[in-house]
Amino acid sequence: MICDFFKLATKGAQALQPYQPGKPIDELEREYGIKNAIKLASNENPTGISPLVISAIQAHLQELPRYPDGNGFRLKQALAKYHKLNIDNIALGNGSNDILDLVARAFVSEQDAVLFSAHAFAVYPIVTQAIGAKMIIVPAKNWGHDLTAMRQAITPNTKLIFIANPNNPTGTWVNKTELQNFLDNVPENVIIVLDEAYFDYMDAPDYPDSSLWLDRYPNLVVARTFSKAYGLAALRVGYALAHPDIINLLNRVRQPFNVNTLALIAAEVALQDRAYIQNAVALNKVGLATLTQAFDKMGINYIPSRANFITFDLGKPALPIYEALLHQGVIVRPIGSYGMPNHLRVTVGLPEENERFIQALKKILTQT
Amino acid sequence: MICDFFKLATKGAQALQPYQPGKPIDELEREYGIKNAIKLASNENPTGISPLVISAIQAHLQELPRYPDGNGFRLKQALAKYHKLNIDNIALGNGSNDILDLVARAFVSEQDAVLFSAHAFAVYPIVTQAIGAKMIIVPAKNWGHDLTAMRQAITPNTKLIFIANPNNPTGTWVNKTELQNFLDNVPENVIIVLDEAYFDYMDAPDYPDSSLWLDRYPNLVVARTFSKAYGLAALRVGYALAHPDIINLLNRVRQPFNVNTLALIAAEVALQDRAYIQNAVALNKVGLATLTQAFDKMGINYIPSRANFITFDLGKPALPIYEALLHQGVIVRPIGSYGMPNHLRVTVGLPEENERFIQALKKILTQT
Repeated sequence: MICDFFKLATKGAQALQPYQPGKPIDELEREYGIKNAIKLASNENPTGISPLVISAIQAHLQELPRYPDGNGFRLKQALAKYHKLNIDNIALGNGSNDILDLVARAFVSEQDAVLFSAHAFAVYPIVTQAIGAKMIIVPAKNWGHDLTAMRQAITPNTKLIFIANPNNPTGTWVNKTELQNFLDNVPENVIIVLDEAYFDYMDAPDYPDSSLWLDRYPNLVVARTFSKAYGLAALRVGYALAHPDIINLLNRVRQPFNVNTLALIAAEVALQDRAYIQNAVALNKVGLATLTQAFDKMGINYIPSRANFITFDLGKPALPIYEALLHQGVIVRPIGSYGMPNHLRVTVGLPEENERFIQALKKILTQT
Repeated sequence: MICDFFKLATKGAQALQPYQPGKPIDELEREYGIKNAIKLASNENPTGISPLVISAIQAHLQELPRYPDGNGFRLKQALAKYHKLNIDNIALGNGSNDILDLVARAFVSEQDAVLFSAHAFAVYPIVTQAIGAKMIIVPAKNWGHDLTAMRQAITPNTKLIFIANPNNPTGTWVNKTELQNFLDNVPENVIIVLDEAYFDYMDAPDYPDSSLWLDRYPNLVVARTFSKAYGLAALRVGYALAHPDIINLLNRVRQPFNVNTLALIAAEVALQDRAYIQNAVALNKVGLATLTQAFDKMGINYIPSRANFITFDLGKPALPIYEALLHQGVIVRPIGSYGMPNHLRVTVGLPEENERFIQALKKILTQT
């Protein structure tokens, strides 16, 4: 008889509900016998890959038998220049998911608590559960972070707060005044992660650039990624900006070669290719307008967003609509696991993809 | 006054001594003003990259804006076929380092103990310290694992045992009979990781293929990597073979996109390219013979190895010799941090690299 390995596992691992990724295109096509499916499910950049990135990768393929530079010296140098910070303000991650995980592992023990908002990014409960620490989940206000309630929910054993700005999957954001007021009132011995994965898309005038605040708030960790506007989700690279002592601790707990060589090279080049980002951001703005106008015409409520996705409310269980869209070859994201069973999240795609999604949704809603 | 972030960190993170990677070539050249340096410091495959891998990567560059397949379906399918196992016997890691980390995180809590040998791979203490668990370090026998002593050192709170076979940095290996005898006598509620990063190089007739033993020992985790003989260290991909319940737990604690797209594609192709591996292994065998003959002629003791590296004993502090080699443009690996201050580890390189190392060492030893 075989030992019960679940009982052997840590309490955290036992309780853990793994992350559910967006359905891959080839999986849908295989399962449903469909061709030409489109995926608007993972907030990926639809504009293709920068030719500068392609060239840089091709120039370095001969290096694949060598380990990556475990210090990521050149990428950190480029990021330091870009952010006008020092190299010791920067830690690199295998995607910003790795950064979220590293901060939790560096600071949070089983007896500590981690605080975040309801409907916030799924990785916050996952990294907390993996440690077996306590979760404090603060109810949202209008689907967004209620910073006043979050401030009041801090307990003496709260070690870490995650704030997604803007939040995924709701698209809501907290403005500069609210956020600074919050940061001014959180004790300095609580680490605050501002997860800004969608930073580059945010053109709201009240949306802050918290990377400028490291001196003012030494307990702040700003997480950014190359997976969204930079178009490098496949390669896995994100980074943290923080006080050098925090960066030192993140570097202790990270795996020595957590970021692969091609990710380091691609990110360094992508950071310089501002035309690529500008094009992606411009296209996204137009796409968001197309989607919201269509929702308005259809009388569908949505949560205002400036990111590269938008979440809409079907007023009834959304899963049948999600499945009907799959049959039309359109993959969006159900977010029942975020406590939003009546909503779906759609990524802004290319103009023709947005149109295809709108037509498919119209057809389904007319039929039901 | 700024908060003391070290005090805020977990005990594990505070105590952690980060991994020291081999010195990168460009760092040496920058620091010492040297050109044409060679690196025999990280047990990398010196034979270059497989053309099949290059083609496969180039064919998939357009996918970089998309997230990887978080389930690694195609690579796991290829590995299942290769090992004659099922997909649910396989978990993928961001290098096998990730696998070692995941096993520790899935099973080990702060109050548990992790057991391994003295002079064993540096990542075992690191992943244990990161959790803040107790380390039981068993003295080695002839620089290798003393399995009898390790068996006796198991305590009621021992949750996990790491065995490197062969061991890095000593090159020692445990044979089939010894290992099975050990596994037969370890309680089934202790997880045993057999770290076989150098498996493909091992041509010793008594060296076992433990991937065949999963049915017999359900508490066994076999860790393999694409970083050594497969020549893909830059891309970060390794895997675990184990009982499906253990694999399920590793999948819970891993990051959802821990392995990047190009790593998944490259590994799938590399697994098929047996000619590449055979060539690398054959060249390694010749290179090992060249090195041991040179050591014999110079009267230098070494620890017998069948892996792609060999560790030799200078009979006096090795660091000055390491530095003298750096000045000759030859990077090897000092292993004082492994409790072996008189030894150096050299990776088997191309014939001309081995020769350059031998000549540089001769010159230095004649002068001192």
